Amino acid sequence: MERLLTHINSPEDLKKLGLDELPRLAQELREFIIDIVSTKEGHLGASLGVVELTIALHYVFDTPKDKLIWDVGHQAYGHKILTGRKEIFETNRQLGGISGFPKRSESVYDDFGTGHSSTAISAILGMAMASRLNGDLTKQHIAVVGDASIASGMAFEGLNHLGVADVNALIILNDNAIGIDPSVGALKKYLTNVKKGTAKDENIFECLNLNYSGPIDGHNINALIRELERLKQIDGPKLLHIITTKGRGLKKAEEDQVVYHAPGKFDKVTGERLKKSKGAEPPKYQDVFGHTLVELAERNDKIVGITPAMPTGSSLKFMMDKMPHRAFDVGIAEQHAVTLAAGMATQGLVPFCNIYSTFLQRAYDQIIHDVALQNISVIFCLDRAGLVGQDGPTHHGVFDLAYLRCIPNLVVFAPMNEMELRNIMYTAQLGLNGPIAIRYPRGQGTTLDWKNEFEPIEIGTGRCLREGTKVAMLSIGHIGNEVERAIIALDNPEKVGHYDMRFAKPLDKQLLRTIFERYDHIITVEDGCQMGGFGSAVLEFANGERLSKPVTILGIPDKFVDHGTMEETHKMAGIDFDTLFSHIQSTLDQCG
Amino acid sequence: MERLLTHINSPEDLKKLGLDELPRLAQELREFIIDIVSTKEGHLGASLGVVELTIALHYVFDTPKDKLIWDVGHQAYGHKILTGRKEIFETNRQLGGISGFPKRSESVYDDFGTGHSSTAISAILGMAMASRLNGDLTKQHIAVVGDASIASGMAFEGLNHLGVADVNALIILNDNAIGIDPSVGALKKYLTNVKKGTAKDENIFECLNLNYSGPIDGHNINALIRELERLKQIDGPKLLHIITTKGRGLKKAEEDQVVYHAPGKFDKVTGERLKKSKGAEPPKYQDVFGHTLVELAERNDKIVGITPAMPTGSSLKFMMDKMPHRAFDVGIAEQHAVTLAAGMATQGLVPFCNIYSTFLQRAYDQIIHDVALQNISVIFCLDRAGLVGQDGPTHHGVFDLAYLRCIPNLVVFAPMNEMELRNIMYTAQLGLNGPIAIRYPRGQGTTLDWKNEFEPIEIGTGRCLREGTKVAMLSIGHIGNEVERAIIALDNPEKVGHYDMRFAKPLDKQLLRTIFERYDHIITVEDGCQMGGFGSAVLEFANGERLSKPVTILGIPDKFVDHGTMEETHKMAGIDFDTLFSHIQSTLDQCG
Repeated sequence: MERLLTHINSPEDLKKLGLDELPRLAQELREFIIDIVSTKEGHLGASLGVVELTIALHYVFDTPKDKLIWDVGHQAYGHKILTGRKEIFETNRQLGGISGFPKRSESVYDDFGTGHSSTAISAILGMAMASRLNGDLTKQHIAVVGDASIASGMAFEGLNHLGVADVNALIILNDNAIGIDPSVGALKKYLTNVKKGTAKDENIFECLNLNYSGPIDGHNINALIRELERLKQIDGPKLLHIITTKGRGLKKAEEDQVVYHAPGKFDKVTGERLKKSKGAEPPKYQDVFGHTLVELAERNDKIVGITPAMPTGSSLKFMMDKMPHRAFDVGIAEQHAVTLAAGMATQGLVPFCNIYSTFLQRAYDQIIHDVALQNISVIFCLDRAGLVGQDGPTHHGVFDLAYLRCIPNLVVFAPMNEMELRNIMYTAQLGLNGPIAIRYPRGQGTTLDWKNEFEPIEIGTGRCLREGTKVAMLSIGHIGNEVERAIIALDNPEKVGHYDMRFAKPLDKQLLRTIFERYDHIITVEDGCQMGGFGSAVLEFANGERLSKPVTILGIPDKFVDHGTMEETHKMAGIDFDTLFSHIQSTLDQCG
Repeated sequence: MERLLTHINSPEDLKKLGLDELPRLAQELREFIIDIVSTKEGHLGASLGVVELTIALHYVFDTPKDKLIWDVGHQAYGHKILTGRKEIFETNRQLGGISGFPKRSESVYDDFGTGHSSTAISAILGMAMASRLNGDLTKQHIAVVGDASIASGMAFEGLNHLGVADVNALIILNDNAIGIDPSVGALKKYLTNVKKGTAKDENIFECLNLNYSGPIDGHNINALIRELERLKQIDGPKLLHIITTKGRGLKKAEEDQVVYHAPGKFDKVTGERLKKSKGAEPPKYQDVFGHTLVELAERNDKIVGITPAMPTGSSLKFMMDKMPHRAFDVGIAEQHAVTLAAGMATQGLVPFCNIYSTFLQRAYDQIIHDVALQNISVIFCLDRAGLVGQDGPTHHGVFDLAYLRCIPNLVVFAPMNEMELRNIMYTAQLGLNGPIAIRYPRGQGTTLDWKNEFEPIEIGTGRCLREGTKVAMLSIGHIGNEVERAIIALDNPEKVGHYDMRFAKPLDKQLLRTIFERYDHIITVEDGCQMGGFGSAVLEFANGERLSKPVTILGIPDKFVDHGTMEETHKMAGIDFDTLFSHIQSTLDQCG
């Protein structure tokens, strides 16, 4: 039997199907997603969970005239496939291919780019208010928001405004009781009661003046369509609560929802993940963080761990499993996480607050106002700093050195390898009399035998990795390893010095003075933005001391870097091996 | 009759009073606050509203052992007076005097520094969790949070965690239906229903698993004490809802709560504000923004205005009054404000999103992820940029140039005067194909006759104010006026060129090239942080083009600047008239 999906290249095609054909289409769409993601990788569970919803929305509403926003965007694969991107879906997350997230520049059906959570309510309300002002009273505005995402502060701000806005907007609460890790918090508990029928009369969303309906089964496509048709006729702000299962339709993915959020390659029939058979490899920085924190916490009973909704991704889970009373997942709540840590530190605890670099942007004010201004000793561990590869521009952690460096009292450090990460974590928990941010990248370190004895690091000191005569390479963080590789590949590596500066703040001024005296040319290298970053700090220092040597700043240029592999994104940014090599070579040539 | 307050220098003294004496003490405390604030200025209404609560808290609880946080901190005057700062209260907000906000370094009774809203729940929860881990199960933890503040996303994140935390914490919701301006939003509407008794059975806070009690009269000191005593005996997370009147006890302040939030000098008996009899003066930048926006909006019907809870302070109120359907106060919700604006802009509206510079830190991720990454044309007007004087380090808007400059696609502009502000607003609404941030200071501009005809400004161009021969002054924003004054005061002003660079991004590269060719020495001046700011941008440019002239960067050094008058804070930061003058003079001397 020919597949229905074969003929569907737009919501218009979809609307030609009869209601009774939709369950079959759902099955096909699910298989299509599994088929591609099993070999091309990507986010799986979230999209499987909303297959029926996706079909129902495009069946009932008039997209792209009606506005539709997928919060976070992990769950938009079905949406992409039904809106003209079926044939290129296999390019998902690849260089030059489609984005793994909704993206305005990619399709008129992607009404708002998402990636970070909890933005959809604000954005859809903005669109709905615009429609009202533009006199377009028939247009529908829909945002699909997960239960983990709706518990974030920004989403609440949106709901609080939505409830008093005279607009035509529908929030669909996609309640699967999980984000990337299981949902937490009082609202999650409350929603569980609602689902069990044990909640009382008035609904929390009704308290916020929203027209609430549900909960309904989000996998019952006919029920969904009936309810959406009904809600389409009702003016004002509405919230529809649907219950879905993340990973729906692939047994393994339903059973292990955390792993199957983004499982890598897997067998599309059994769901079994394909293990790459490889030899011993260096650990991920994430695991070095996780194991080291447990090791330190076993010695120092003041240590606590905090993650906003990333226990698995950050490996704080190691500590949560071992010391559940001292390690906390606070949900998608970066602002709260930072100030909670500050509160704890005032009472003598030693909080390690682990937040992805890109998500720390959500807590910028709290770092300044609640931590640095009061000079409170919170230890920030910024995961996924630098370029992150396939997740692309919504997730690159490339601004942190610039936005943190300007904050008084804050120490900013980037480890070049596992031992450096361990040692700075060790140093920080000894007590620094102020806050520190430790930023490290996604993925593997460099060393098989990484579990060194701890040694303290003197704050504000760099390391000389090799001395040279002509050109000094000043790197910060893991990218120093690429710099080292590039130097070794030169004809005259002895002409090139290499310094792992480690601290973007405070700078190792003494070392910098020596370097500016000794070398003809300085090249700074960072996997962060050139504007205002580490290189800029070196310039400020040199200018302040009237040291005039030519300086080249290598880092992310002033643009958003697209998605691709880690290697490809580094190449796009001009900080890959080849580009580093040729920069050093040509600088050496200039120096003669 | 001798005043009770005379003998109260600590909560211990307070506890010696009988219950029946407390209403009299409340009256005295209120008079004391009015007395001092009427002549020394400061925040009035909020502290008057919590006089009874303040006494009750220190009477019932064992501060400073028990932890007490005043959210936002405007309302902490009574707290300061009762905790040992009565004698120095008249130094409030003055250079070297006590801070207008709770401040950890000022008193052991100030458990957490506040200034920005909605941080108290997270901080008190951190303290309560620390007490539990530290094995201190008798300690009490109290946060006082206003109804405007609790509607902010960060507060919700805190409540969502608090509801499932096994800690001893009490949130006191101080519901007076107003922040600085009247509260807005669905939660405010809901709380109104609760107070009227028309809300249904289950309370929104009970939905979040909190032990709710109230609402009770927050001016009935005996009722307060009874309820606090009762709650003290109950473990777990609790929320007490009290109703108060902002400005309570001063008729004028109760009647005009917005103005009497911080009324300036007033007659302590009648409450009448003292008008300074002065001649014609230049307008405040705020009013130039407000009037100009109305003027533009009358011509361009796509323009909308957004403020997160600062209609009066920002003067967006002018537009809200004239065009209520096109200008919106979204409450203390900076994150929402930014993404709402982005949503509106995608549908063809032209949003002016006005946020204080220091509060935009709350929406940093939204600027990057929701606006700049998608290159959406939102016009940000950043009020209170630079040093703000008496509000001090919690409120100085000194990081914006640094944290905004690193964001791709974003234009960053600072007007030197009213006409520049008007012209850039005019230019921005014509359509820039991308976002812009316009940052201007608190207070007066420079020009009596400021309502010029609009002229467009070419993006990325500076202005030559005077040509010179030796030293070039490169200023950005209003501080250029001080630079100009300093130049004029020199013996040889003709040796000094002055350029109003206007754009921190994109830089006027052509003009910079000319300047670096022509002059011996460059001095950059900004009222923002030196690290990563405008001066740093000039260094990056010069380094990139291998232009080597000595550059001096004048701006806020790498520390938090204390409170004082505008003049004093500028002096502390080294960017006042005298310091500017002597920098220019000594540079000229060097140049010979």
